Amino acid sequence: MTARRTIGVLGGMGPLATADLYQKIIAATPAQRDQDHLHVIIDADPTVPDRTAALLHGGPDPTPWLVAGARRLAAAGADFIVIPCNTAHAFLGTIRDAVPIPILSMVDETAAALAALLPPGAPAGILATAGTVAVGLYQTALAAVGLDARVPSPEAQTHVDAAIAAVKAGDLSRASTDRALRAAQELVDRGARALVAACTELPLILRPEDVPVPLVDPTAVLAQAAVRVARDARVPLEGGTPHAVRP
Amino acid sequence: MTARRTIGVLGGMGPLATADLYQKIIAATPAQRDQDHLHVIIDADPTVPDRTAALLHGGPDPTPWLVAGARRLAAAGADFIVIPCNTAHAFLGTIRDAVPIPILSMVDETAAALAALLPPGAPAGILATAGTVAVGLYQTALAAVGLDARVPSPEAQTHVDAAIAAVKAGDLSRASTDRALRAAQELVDRGARALVAACTELPLILRPEDVPVPLVDPTAVLAQAAVRVARDARVPLEGGTPHAVRP
Repeated sequence: MTARRTIGVLGGMGPLATADLYQKIIAATPAQRDQDHLHVIIDADPTVPDRTAALLHGGPDPTPWLVAGARRLAAAGADFIVIPCNTAHAFLGTIRDAVPIPILSMVDETAAALAALLPPGAPAGILATAGTVAVGLYQTALAAVGLDARVPSPEAQTHVDAAIAAVKAGDLSRASTDRALRAAQELVDRGARALVAACTELPLILRPEDVPVPLVDPTAVLAQAAVRVARDARVPLEGGTPHAVRP
Repeated sequence: MTARRTIGVLGGMGPLATADLYQKIIAATPAQRDQDHLHVIIDADPTVPDRTAALLHGGPDPTPWLVAGARRLAAAGADFIVIPCNTAHAFLGTIRDAVPIPILSMVDETAAALAALLPPGAPAGILATAGTVAVGLYQTALAAVGLDARVPSPEAQTHVDAAIAAVKAGDLSRASTDRALRAAQELVDRGARALVAACTELPLILRPEDVPVPLVDPTAVLAQAAVRVARDARVPLEGGTPHAVRP
């Protein structure tokens, strides 16, 4: 058997999104029995301070928690790390500098997936937390691959934020879906050729069949990248660089 | 806020059962936001050798893998451990002796839950791997609480084993459910007043509404015990003893 890598998941932001990533890693792994699956270590510390509050409202800096969790994963034997929280990627540079193992970027992986899906210059709509939108995580990553990121109007953004908060409180009801859909429709009306469910809570309430354009799920993209890198230790893997994984 | 404990999950046996336990821990935790949830560390190493093969067919001893995983969890900061694999509980004594933190017993927790559900001496049907059945894990635990464990006939047991193998290969289809149900019906016909889905793969294909008697899910029982112990560090928690948790 080819040498494998152990996946470290820096999770808990929120817990359901972490469980969702783990299930998508399992589903993306070709397996007939337990032993075909990959070694996954998950550190889910939900006490990490709110990422959007830190970015926008002067809330406590989550970086010490994120670095501590990443170090626990490295110490426990993870060969690389994935982070199932888009907003936490605003702090990715600092975390990468603090740990000895590479960290895949969910944002960069998703931008690469969009670039394979859309023609150059095409607009893609970003559904994300106010924090992710404000710091321009996806706007920057999409520009780097020649795509045009469009974000919701301030009013539509409040619906996205409310839907995300509902999921974090365990509410996966149709009402939450409908709030997210209002913003989705606005982005499609403004020309988006694809939508990105760019907060890990959103794929839990938004399905591809709910929207009239392709819906890209960064959690699924990240799961596939993690499985690709973990199943064959010969696949190049470098930390600290955009688009770390290009097998 | 009351001091909390960090939950360590010794998982991967199989991966889907580990994801199921994590989701049941999340669902059992009263929470309105990420920060209300519990710190969970999961070590899911699916390369642990097959537990039933070791118990019945001279396969490799999984104990070194289980001990290594439990030690990683303790080193990473877990305050206690839960193991979402019933058959692995055949090796519980050795693992408990090897780590400095307590390990809850899913088998003992489930026996206690059954004792609260059934009158003294009542028969309960055990759906489990051939390994769990052969070493008498549930027969012993139920006898200790004054209940009568009934196990499937050899023919019905082959259906249970086939259903479990299907889930481990990712097959959650109705056909798998039907195979498990054949054994369930046999146990009910032989007087079982409750059924225990005593392999962590079984709750993924067997629902309470599928069977005519109460169906006890040890994964859910373990999740509730873990949340109870983790949410309040004042709740007594001793390792190495049966019924470790009696708040």
